[in-house]
Amino acid sequence: MKRVLLTGAGGNLGRALRKTLAGWADEIRLSDIAPIDDLNEGETFVQCDLGDYEAVMSLVEGCDGIIHLGGISVENTFDSILNGNIKGAYNVYEACRRHLAGRVLFASSNHVIGFHERETCLDADSPMRPDSMYGVSKGFGELLARYYWDKFGVESALVRIGSCFDKPANRRMLSTWMSVDDFTDLIKRVFAADRLGCPVVYGVSDNPTKWWDNTKVSYLGWNPKDSSAVFENEPHILEEVVDPNDPAVRYQGGGFAAAGHFED
Amino acid sequence: MKRVLLTGAGGNLGRALRKTLAGWADEIRLSDIAPIDDLNEGETFVQCDLGDYEAVMSLVEGCDGIIHLGGISVENTFDSILNGNIKGAYNVYEACRRHLAGRVLFASSNHVIGFHERETCLDADSPMRPDSMYGVSKGFGELLARYYWDKFGVESALVRIGSCFDKPANRRMLSTWMSVDDFTDLIKRVFAADRLGCPVVYGVSDNPTKWWDNTKVSYLGWNPKDSSAVFENEPHILEEVVDPNDPAVRYQGGGFAAAGHFED
Amino acid sequence: MKRVLLTGAGGNLGRALRKTLAGWADEIRLSDIAPIDDLNEGETFVQCDLGDYEAVMSLVEGCDGIIHLGGISVENTFDSILNGNIKGAYNVYEACRRHLAGRVLFASSNHVIGFHERETCLDADSPMRPDSMYGVSKGFGELLARYYWDKFGVESALVRIGSCFDKPANRRMLSTWMSVDDFTDLIKRVFAADRLGCPVVYGVSDNPTKWWDNTKVSYLGWNPKDSSAVFENEPHILEEVVDPNDPAVRYQGGGFAAAGHFED
Amino acid sequence: MKRVLLTGAGGNLGRALRKTLAGWADEIRLSDIAPIDDLNEGETFVQCDLGDYEAVMSLVEGCDGIIHLGGISVENTFDSILNGNIKGAYNVYEACRRHLAGRVLFASSNHVIGFHERETCLDADSPMRPDSMYGVSKGFGELLARYYWDKFGVESALVRIGSCFDKPANRRMLSTWMSVDDFTDLIKRVFAADRLGCPVVYGVSDNPTKWWDNTKVSYLGWNPKDSSAVFENEPHILEEVVDPNDPAVRYQGGGFAAAGHFED
Amino acid sequence: MKRVLLTGAGGNLGRALRKTLAGWADEIRLSDIAPIDDLNEGETFVQCDLGDYEAVMSLVEGCDGIIHLGGISVENTFDSILNGNIKGAYNVYEACRRHLAGRVLFASSNHVIGFHERETCLDADSPMRPDSMYGVSKGFGELLARYYWDKFGVESALVRIGSCFDKPANRRMLSTWMSVDDFTDLIKRVFAADRLGCPVVYGVSDNPTKWWDNTKVSYLGWNPKDSSAVFENEPHILEEVVDPNDPAVRYQGGGFAAAGHFED
Amino acid sequence: MKRVLLTGAGGNLGRALRKTLAGWADEIRLSDIAPIDDLNEGETFVQCDLGDYEAVMSLVEGCDGIIHLGGISVENTFDSILNGNIKGAYNVYEACRRHLAGRVLFASSNHVIGFHERETCLDADSPMRPDSMYGVSKGFGELLARYYWDKFGVESALVRIGSCFDKPANRRMLSTWMSVDDFTDLIKRVFAADRLGCPVVYGVSDNPTKWWDNTKVSYLGWNPKDSSAVFENEPHILEEVVDPNDPAVRYQGGGFAAAGHFED
Repeated sequence: MKRVLLTGAGGNLGRALRKTLAGWADEIRLSDIAPIDDLNEGETFVQCDLGDYEAVMSLVEGCDGIIHLGGISVENTFDSILNGNIKGAYNVYEACRRHLAGRVLFASSNHVIGFHERETCLDADSPMRPDSMYGVSKGFGELLARYYWDKFGVESALVRIGSCFDKPANRRMLSTWMSVDDFTDLIKRVFAADRLGCPVVYGVSDNPTKWWDNTKVSYLGWNPKDSSAVFENEPHILEEVVDPNDPAVRYQGGGFAAAGHFED
Repeated sequence: MKRVLLTGAGGNLGRALRKTLAGWADEIRLSDIAPIDDLNEGETFVQCDLGDYEAVMSLVEGCDGIIHLGGISVENTFDSILNGNIKGAYNVYEACRRHLAGRVLFASSNHVIGFHERETCLDADSPMRPDSMYGVSKGFGELLARYYWDKFGVESALVRIGSCFDKPANRRMLSTWMSVDDFTDLIKRVFAADRLGCPVVYGVSDNPTKWWDNTKVSYLGWNPKDSSAVFENEPHILEEVVDPNDPAVRYQGGGFAAAGHFED
Repeated sequence: MKRVLLTGAGGNLGRALRKTLAGWADEIRLSDIAPIDDLNEGETFVQCDLGDYEAVMSLVEGCDGIIHLGGISVENTFDSILNGNIKGAYNVYEACRRHLAGRVLFASSNHVIGFHERETCLDADSPMRPDSMYGVSKGFGELLARYYWDKFGVESALVRIGSCFDKPANRRMLSTWMSVDDFTDLIKRVFAADRLGCPVVYGVSDNPTKWWDNTKVSYLGWNPKDSSAVFENEPHILEEVVDPNDPAVRYQGGGFAAAGHFED
Repeated sequence: MKRVLLTGAGGNLGRALRKTLAGWADEIRLSDIAPIDDLNEGETFVQCDLGDYEAVMSLVEGCDGIIHLGGISVENTFDSILNGNIKGAYNVYEACRRHLAGRVLFASSNHVIGFHERETCLDADSPMRPDSMYGVSKGFGELLARYYWDKFGVESALVRIGSCFDKPANRRMLSTWMSVDDFTDLIKRVFAADRLGCPVVYGVSDNPTKWWDNTKVSYLGWNPKDSSAVFENEPHILEEVVDPNDPAVRYQGGGFAAAGHFED
Repeated sequence: MKRVLLTGAGGNLGRALRKTLAGWADEIRLSDIAPIDDLNEGETFVQCDLGDYEAVMSLVEGCDGIIHLGGISVENTFDSILNGNIKGAYNVYEACRRHLAGRVLFASSNHVIGFHERETCLDADSPMRPDSMYGVSKGFGELLARYYWDKFGVESALVRIGSCFDKPANRRMLSTWMSVDDFTDLIKRVFAADRLGCPVVYGVSDNPTKWWDNTKVSYLGWNPKDSSAVFENEPHILEEVVDPNDPAVRYQGGGFAAAGHFED
Repeated sequence: MKRVLLTGAGGNLGRALRKTLAGWADEIRLSDIAPIDDLNEGETFVQCDLGDYEAVMSLVEGCDGIIHLGGISVENTFDSILNGNIKGAYNVYEACRRHLAGRVLFASSNHVIGFHERETCLDADSPMRPDSMYGVSKGFGELLARYYWDKFGVESALVRIGSCFDKPANRRMLSTWMSVDDFTDLIKRVFAADRLGCPVVYGVSDNPTKWWDNTKVSYLGWNPKDSSAVFENEPHILEEVVDPNDPAVRYQGGGFAAAGHFED
């Protein structure tokens, strides 16, 4: 890769990937709505509100790949989601169409399917059932990506990220956790694949408990190596008490599915 | 029904339904972004931009059903679609959540599945493949409706309207045509059903050629009575020349699938 | 047909079929746990507790077909169900195995699938989800029939009867109603078919609203002719008020699904 | 249609179609391995062994549609089948590729699926299970047609003809019968469709008992109008005695499935 | 776990589990129809005929989990099966409903699906096809469990046990064998899962040859560690001669499927 | 095994298998259209044109298993394919029927499904979409094998071989490569299985990228041990440049799908 754009580079996940992707591309162009000033070698930075059409056109131009983490990453007001995730996604895909930016890894979310029950095994063809306005906006992004693929040939991986943190913060994440290393490996495979198309990939490590089946995208060759098993006996996991009838336990989206309407 | 809201009442379809629904409810509250001044008995009018949150809250309050035709109904600029179909749909569902407005008939579109090929028989579980930004926005509306159903219990019929005109304007519409009378019957059944849930319904008459299978919603009891067969021998149908390899013929979305990016 | 056994002949459905099946077979052997003394020409009667093994062996011997309506037909105590529906079904199938009695029409019930939601369209392969101990016992009967087919070649039609009455008694039955004439026609087709196998058939007329799809058994040639549409405007239908969130409305089993444990 | 080629025109089905298709095309070019000398207006004749490559090239050239009935139509020696159905089909498709002959209606047969049991409802995606070498050769033809569609864009309707005779000759044909008029209507629709692709169509009338479901090709608009019901009470039907365990009754292919290896 | 009930504790499998589960719960309450007098620390014993309603109510009261192995575990007379497996299962589930006993691990059997052919890969949604009255009774138990889940919220794991012995006794068991350790691990996971629901689990180790796919219950995190591969070269395995057309080889149920009616 | 026939023994794959299968059977009878004169102990040779009926009858007689690699193994003229793959396959199966030769391992090819797109995950039930006349002929062979199984009980494994070479020759083969050792293991398992039936098996090693899912044949116990991963960094792999829109990349059949009609 010559120049890859990493949007949302200032968030937790963006910061983590800056480390693991170091050296992968000649240049990683970081963007975020907030300033980033600790650039490493091989990194450049462009401050950008993804809701700003012209700014995104400039941002994407000259890149040959996009890792699109930017926008709002949890439930929020509709206005915030509208700007970051609806306008933002549109702007990014329009920029791809206009500037031939190569492939996109779109950071979708498990919250597009969060209203499926935990005992339902999902795959790429399971219907979307968002658990939040955040989830609805990520579903919009997936439809958009599909449209740009069907009509304009823009290849995208729609990665429904589970929980990409250093380690599982609670019992639910034993099932949804994806290590940063596994995600990094997925990113590299997405851009290295001879052909990508527009697949749905569940972004999750090789945990003992699984809700999602990636068999349909085994053509990508992604075989996660980490597992949440090593965290099963940590105190915050062992001591958490759960009720199987709690909506946060019943539904895959966890707390997102259990929450009411977002209030400022 | 006591008071039903009909959004987009000033459009062609809205005008047609005003006639066929006359007398069905005690009051039909019409709304449109443009003025309507030819009110009939039983009709009231509220001018409203669906993108205006507070205006929509007022509009919906006191209604016990919504026929939501409003917004943009063909491909357009992203800004227009964003206001009418994204913000507009959000505002309508938020109003339902806040004001318990009863059921919604959401006028979705065949353009959410327009990139399926014509020889593919679709049903309610077929994946969305929008053929336009308009189609993407209608897909957003369907996800939104599903979310408000799963979390807040708002019942909606997601009617993927084919082509609801007086008669088929071209050969493609022989397959996609829905008569206004059949749509009217569907509307009445949606609101009369003992239980609705959140089904996907293909809005199409009993035409000889069929692309869509409504078997999964036969619990609604909608059995269209009209057929495009009576128009098969009209000159504009007989004389139209089509090429099976033309994208407008290959894909279900017709001209929407064949068109490039919308330019102002 | 020479001699057909009709079990449960003293019940409402049995009495109705005695009329519509008159003359169909040389002899219809009626059985019931209670006496029947109004025999018509071509009818014989054997009083029999279906839970009595030897009595059932005698009852079945010499028959070349069985219409098995006998046993308990609504929710009841486990002991009653055990005797009539568990032991009773076993005795009938054992008698078939031992005495080669020809085909069986087993009166199963929609209550074997009563915990599916109303907006779910079912067919012969949908999983059983009984809504009552009565439903569980009918599911046992279906498994038993399948076993006698797979191992001993006894052909059975497993008819999941909706509501077989003169007319729909409530709004739910607009969807579940089967006319006695349609059932009679089904019975005749089951015994006349060149090959039966062991199919699941939903016993329902050609009602406007449908929950069940019999496409998979169209090899039987049963095309119901009656419809509940003619009853839609009767006062007891029009005046019934339903709540879509009532379990009796949400689930296909209606009141059976909504009821708690049966108490004597 | 200007010039349509009808192969196998000398067979029973060919003769029947010559009558019903009269006047449909400017010219119907008949071919057969045996002479035909009773030409009507609008008919021309070319004697041709379909196994003769050069002869088939000439035969097809200049036609804008092919109704390919030619070859062997029942079980026969492998050599006969090889010449008529394997070489013959190859030659016809090669001629289409080389001479752009328009669409093909390929007369396939129910014998490509004849080893499915009668109580299995099939559709276009059911796996092939041929019941005879004849059936295997028709399966070869379907694969060939699919290949010429996928690679060279030749459109074909693969019509798995049931039993196309004046009337059902036996009880099995009550389910498999297709009237000549219904077939004629199908032929016209196949050539008139705006887009055909390469669908599998079960060639069967609207009989009371059905084994095959054409829902997936409802985009063709073929709705058969005849029914075997009118023949149910003919003596040869009423008097036929069948055993459900006879392979000829158990399997859809009837006598073809029950027969052993073809001996000269 | 505080107090877990182990029914059928006197059988072979019960005795094995007493060892492997030692120390897992504060108390393991053993029950059997025959006396057990070699109690270990942490074990209590209650002699009980599972067909005795009141006895089962007492037995279950105060437990917070049930491992239900009790009843008849091979083909037997209908009366024995009726008492142990039909009445017994009903009594256990009624006791759960009345006394809130927590989860149930229901020892179902591969014999509920024993009439599927060996080359058919099954999963949790495959239709039941019992191979014996024993298999029918286990199917009854599964339906019962599903009913108590749907209506009363009792969680159950329906474990279709293959062959749980020290080692495979014959060639068939190379595919059906489950080690006691793997079963023990499954038991612990069933009771430790944050949410169980009512899943079907195939009880089988990680053998080289597999008939059953547990992907749909991967949310349980059960990954068997043992394999029958280590027994492949034992003399009783190597020397066994099998005929692929023997019903005991053709059907998954093995000898159960091949046996005739059980005779005392 | 006593005497196993290996057809096509003179080809590359045949030569490789002669080494790995050495000692497996008492006798391996080699056949090829060209002479083989380097026989090892335990090998015999019969020169044979598979298109010669009588020669094949003699060849097969006395064998208790056939590994059928013979015929044409890449695209070729129709006449060559007709002789080697159509007549040849027929002759082999006829010989099995007549001489009870035991099981057949039929070397089918990925080219029977070569027109599926790379991002489509296939299994044994995916429809055939041949990419060449070679692929069509292998599809014919599969249909033939199925027919001889359904009617005459001849067991066959239909192995859709990916690319069986020493190592992957290009990037595509990273996904399609099967090592000779893995193939050898598959062959042994096919003949050792207690029951085979007529399964479709994808012949591919445990490569990182996978297009084909063999879950449905896990009853065979074949778990490939080799992987193309060890070749990923070889120069000819690293340096190959591919275009995702090239038909040879888009379709699973690679160059076969991209090629035009075969010209001598």
